[in-house]
Amino acid sequence: MTAQNTTQQATPTPTITVDLSPTRTVPRGIGRIPVVKVSPVIEGGAFPAKAVVGELIPIRAKVFREGHDAVNASVILTSPDGVETRVDMSPMQPSGLDPWEAWVRPDAPGPWTFRVEGWSDPWGTWHHNAEAKLPAGVDIELVCLEGRDLLERTAAVADAAGSPIEASILRATAQLLIPQRPALDLLEVANGVGLATAMKKYGPREMVSPTAEFPLFVDRKRAQFSSWYEFFPRSQGATYDATSDTWTSGTFDSSHERLEAAAAMGFDVIYLPPVHPIGTAFKKGKNNTLDATEKDPGSPWAIGNTAGGHDALHPDLGDWDAFDRFVAKAGSLGVEVALDFALQASPDHPWVIEHPEWFTTRLDGTIAYAENPPKKYQDIYPINFDNDRDGIYNEVLRILKLWMAHGVRIFRIDNPHTKPVEFWAWILEQLRETDPDVLFLAEAFTKPEMMHALGKVGFHQSYPYFTWRNSKWELEQYVNELAHEMDSFYRPNFFTNTPDINPTFLQSGNPAAFTIRAILAATLSPTWGVYSGFELFEGEPLRVPGEEFKNSEKYEYRPRDYNAQPNLNMLLGTLNALRTKHAALQQMRQITFHHAPNDSVIAYSKTDAGNTVLVICSLDPFNTAESDVYLDMAALGLPADAQLITLSDELTGAVITWGQRNYVRLHPGSPALILHVLTGN
Amino acid sequence: MTAQNTTQQATPTPTITVDLSPTRTVPRGIGRIPVVKVSPVIEGGAFPAKAVVGELIPIRAKVFREGHDAVNASVILTSPDGVETRVDMSPMQPSGLDPWEAWVRPDAPGPWTFRVEGWSDPWGTWHHNAEAKLPAGVDIELVCLEGRDLLERTAAVADAAGSPIEASILRATAQLLIPQRPALDLLEVANGVGLATAMKKYGPREMVSPTAEFPLFVDRKRAQFSSWYEFFPRSQGATYDATSDTWTSGTFDSSHERLEAAAAMGFDVIYLPPVHPIGTAFKKGKNNTLDATEKDPGSPWAIGNTAGGHDALHPDLGDWDAFDRFVAKAGSLGVEVALDFALQASPDHPWVIEHPEWFTTRLDGTIAYAENPPKKYQDIYPINFDNDRDGIYNEVLRILKLWMAHGVRIFRIDNPHTKPVEFWAWILEQLRETDPDVLFLAEAFTKPEMMHALGKVGFHQSYPYFTWRNSKWELEQYVNELAHEMDSFYRPNFFTNTPDINPTFLQSGNPAAFTIRAILAATLSPTWGVYSGFELFEGEPLRVPGEEFKNSEKYEYRPRDYNAQPNLNMLLGTLNALRTKHAALQQMRQITFHHAPNDSVIAYSKTDAGNTVLVICSLDPFNTAESDVYLDMAALGLPADAQLITLSDELTGAVITWGQRNYVRLHPGSPALILHVLTGN
Repeated sequence: MTAQNTTQQATPTPTITVDLSPTRTVPRGIGRIPVVKVSPVIEGGAFPAKAVVGELIPIRAKVFREGHDAVNASVILTSPDGVETRVDMSPMQPSGLDPWEAWVRPDAPGPWTFRVEGWSDPWGTWHHNAEAKLPAGVDIELVCLEGRDLLERTAAVADAAGSPIEASILRATAQLLIPQRPALDLLEVANGVGLATAMKKYGPREMVSPTAEFPLFVDRKRAQFSSWYEFFPRSQGATYDATSDTWTSGTFDSSHERLEAAAAMGFDVIYLPPVHPIGTAFKKGKNNTLDATEKDPGSPWAIGNTAGGHDALHPDLGDWDAFDRFVAKAGSLGVEVALDFALQASPDHPWVIEHPEWFTTRLDGTIAYAENPPKKYQDIYPINFDNDRDGIYNEVLRILKLWMAHGVRIFRIDNPHTKPVEFWAWILEQLRETDPDVLFLAEAFTKPEMMHALGKVGFHQSYPYFTWRNSKWELEQYVNELAHEMDSFYRPNFFTNTPDINPTFLQSGNPAAFTIRAILAATLSPTWGVYSGFELFEGEPLRVPGEEFKNSEKYEYRPRDYNAQPNLNMLLGTLNALRTKHAALQQMRQITFHHAPNDSVIAYSKTDAGNTVLVICSLDPFNTAESDVYLDMAALGLPADAQLITLSDELTGAVITWGQRNYVRLHPGSPALILHVLTGN
Repeated sequence: MTAQNTTQQATPTPTITVDLSPTRTVPRGIGRIPVVKVSPVIEGGAFPAKAVVGELIPIRAKVFREGHDAVNASVILTSPDGVETRVDMSPMQPSGLDPWEAWVRPDAPGPWTFRVEGWSDPWGTWHHNAEAKLPAGVDIELVCLEGRDLLERTAAVADAAGSPIEASILRATAQLLIPQRPALDLLEVANGVGLATAMKKYGPREMVSPTAEFPLFVDRKRAQFSSWYEFFPRSQGATYDATSDTWTSGTFDSSHERLEAAAAMGFDVIYLPPVHPIGTAFKKGKNNTLDATEKDPGSPWAIGNTAGGHDALHPDLGDWDAFDRFVAKAGSLGVEVALDFALQASPDHPWVIEHPEWFTTRLDGTIAYAENPPKKYQDIYPINFDNDRDGIYNEVLRILKLWMAHGVRIFRIDNPHTKPVEFWAWILEQLRETDPDVLFLAEAFTKPEMMHALGKVGFHQSYPYFTWRNSKWELEQYVNELAHEMDSFYRPNFFTNTPDINPTFLQSGNPAAFTIRAILAATLSPTWGVYSGFELFEGEPLRVPGEEFKNSEKYEYRPRDYNAQPNLNMLLGTLNALRTKHAALQQMRQITFHHAPNDSVIAYSKTDAGNTVLVICSLDPFNTAESDVYLDMAALGLPADAQLITLSDELTGAVITWGQRNYVRLHPGSPALILHVLTGN
């Protein structure tokens, strides 16, 4: 089915609707009860904030009002099918800054919206007055009169809502507000828990002042919680014939074994570099040299030759049936295939002849290659997205839909920051409507505004700067920024390494270094990934300083003995199993760093709905690190003054008892504790 | 003309148009060249940012793009009559955060708008490439070819724009780009100043990506730059007859002398407490006691009795003709009259009988008085703005217009934070359309969000927390917040004291304390004010701790001998003269604090269009303070490495020469230096 597929037009060509200045409607600003600084709101509501199914999302606003009467606030969450749910907000500290908050948990994928409603709270006003006036003996009669009236009116509401029991409680309580009773008795009535519950449910909400509806797009869970494993299919089962000094490429079919191994280690996304025909013009040889021979396989990112472009398969890897078998095999293992999507062309790409208008022709008649002056990358022609917007936008959408039709629902986008943000906004908006399960990972290592903008316009995940954050203060600051400032638009994928990034921290090949970075990535971030070879401690650099691998797989075949000893296969499997077991590890928002005086020891906990995991990890792969660790008990979901805490050591199975201050000694052979909080008091 | 005026309906009753959720239209978000985080923008553009005529306003945005090509940005400023002006933006540091900035100076009052346009800059791209490639000897021919093409195309634009000289420069320069020339010669051509100027003016701007139009309301200058003097007309010329133990009230007419004195001291706004009939029910006696007799004049803020309410004059002060004479006298002195506007009623106010629906009737049938439970303020009935919104909103607008018709164009609003923000938003929007010169000062000492919201919906000035900021770190932090974070929506009026606030710092009566606070207020803030008696060092408190004056003028007559010695009349006049002389003191945005190791010495400079004033002030009224002062020469408008600076001491007339580090010795008799920067290098 090759021919049909490479030219298929499975979906009707959509009309380009990108407009430089389309408009949308937002509310006036400040209503009867002012509500401002609502979050999460992306660019004033132009783009949806991010969530996944079942994720706990904080919604916050500043809510305040004139004078002394009580103010209150609610979140109204609207599901994709239009059902509204009200969630009470609570005032936060410091109250002088008027912050209100509610955590909501959307339970289905799709386009949700939310608004915040500020409202006047007569019950709160009465209760505040009662607390101030009753003990002071002021206006007792009037306080009782107004209280009875309020409770009786609310009882009628409870009746109408079909809650006769609450109505009865309210009416009976009203009868207890007798001015002749001692003030403290009246106060006890006013402070009754049953009364508070009934009033919270049915008490009057006046001057309800809604904000605009703000969009919240709820993705499937894998957008946030996934474990990625990257490998080159051509290396899996590749063989070398010394006699002819010739390699035989691995194939999709010979890669099934690696799929099985990755699935056995608990990875659920297999990410493949580009699988298209590779250009021959200016082909790169071993170690990124310019003197490649026809025996060199070339870089998969130099896409396209006479055999086809982005909609074709490299003949060495197999045909479409083989590709479909590969995707099906992955599916049978519960694993998804993510494909690299690199929007650039080798000089041999069919587009260069068929659509020269999709590139930039210079005044000397040549097509512009990639460059970062004075550096030149003559093997790559960048796309020009402005010459024929209709043509190139639709072509890219066609190609994406081709791969989607073959079961690829995740794309890892190569260098999205070198293409117009507006282009991605359009693509992602199209797909959000027709294929909301399709996920995009942005590979943009660039300045913050661009990285943020890509997340804002809809990229579901992004490569972050984790790979270069090694010291404790860096990790704490960066993770806090990701978890508490960028969380509504930017989901990090903590890759320990990639074919492009051989981090200095790992270049020693020291197993402890790999263990540390795997534990940090897998427990700090709900999405993480490794590039194959990581488990074998591959880290030899091409040159120092530098982050290129020696004999990089980008330019040559690299079959491996994945069962060579030592390896991290077992650890990676354990980490992924713990991530599946503990909901706390499937999100990042609820993370707290705990104090450890030794800067070589980092301590953090995550919690979600009563599940709490505490990680203590050494950052020194060469020396034993000792430290006290001071636990923030409240962050562990325990009373702030809890003295004893029982923990399960998830790497050894031991059960241990700790207190508020604990001593740890972490040596390179066992550099971390992953602890599940069992009980505490 | 009393009767006609108190009931006049000079303007047609407007229809209430406040709606809890009106909408407005804003752009989609991120265009071809992304432009985000634009400032100043208030609540997404729902309300206009603030400026005054001739003020320098910073407009900032994050502007960035894909890939390596050059990005650029402009501000397009649109005047009330629709004329667009383009102002080039410049990149700021750190460039990694993509900040761009332009300072604009709107030159007429009214509703302006601005937008930011991000654009692709082919000249910037070519120039960057030339700088990278020419010295490296790369692509010389193509660089020259593309340069010539760009310059020649731009020459055609310059021709079309009627600039033949610039067109000639561009064409001649193009001819100099000869590939055979030495690379460094070509680079010199590319870096030519004349070329840069011509390209900046006529060079191509591509992919122009505009944001929404954001509103910027330009007020008359007095909204920002004014000097206030507050006095009670009833005290001016009041006389006491010991025989009958009776006071005779001062009047508008007997207050002309004080008007003249205030004008002589350089004040340009005279602020009067309420001038309406004073209620008799629960009238307050001397020192806020509850046993007032009919001889006590009562608090002017207990407004209304059978003689009238907010639209009437207190008979003791004079009739409407006297009021008009007072306003006219002020006008002849170049001074404006600001009136207190306190939206509350005494129990005797005509509204209580005519419009009980404008108050809250409690369940026991009584009208609710003001309270902060358990405290009661039975002499004041708060307005209920929700019972009859149409009625009360229009009545307030009618009353404001009545006073406006009598020449009052500035209102000092008493406790605006106890009235709905939405009400003020409506009032201010009405007046911005019909009477844009009318200014409102908010007296809201409350939580930040409310103070900010009042500024955002249109209050032109606000009382700030200056009165309680005495230490250096407090002053620096607070002024930096006002000048650099709140500047687009909140203009502080630095009152040294008010009838309600007798600051602890001044309660000693120490002249140096008054001198210090006057100098700080008058030079830190473009708008400042004093309450009469300040110049006589009045500061005796009713009780300690506490901020009430002993024998407060709020409850009794208080004629003063304003020429008693010692006094600050001369200093206040000098300060106001310096404020008029130096544009730097007429704004706050361009302020820099300089380092002085002694925390009792504060140093700051302000600059505007080449005018720079440096203030060094002791904060210790009791002791001599010595310190070095390290000058930030760049902040003074001089080269950062300037060694010598010539200054005029504006309080003594001496000319002094300073360096980067300078020693000052400030004693209580002369606690500050106000220095005008003359030259430096």
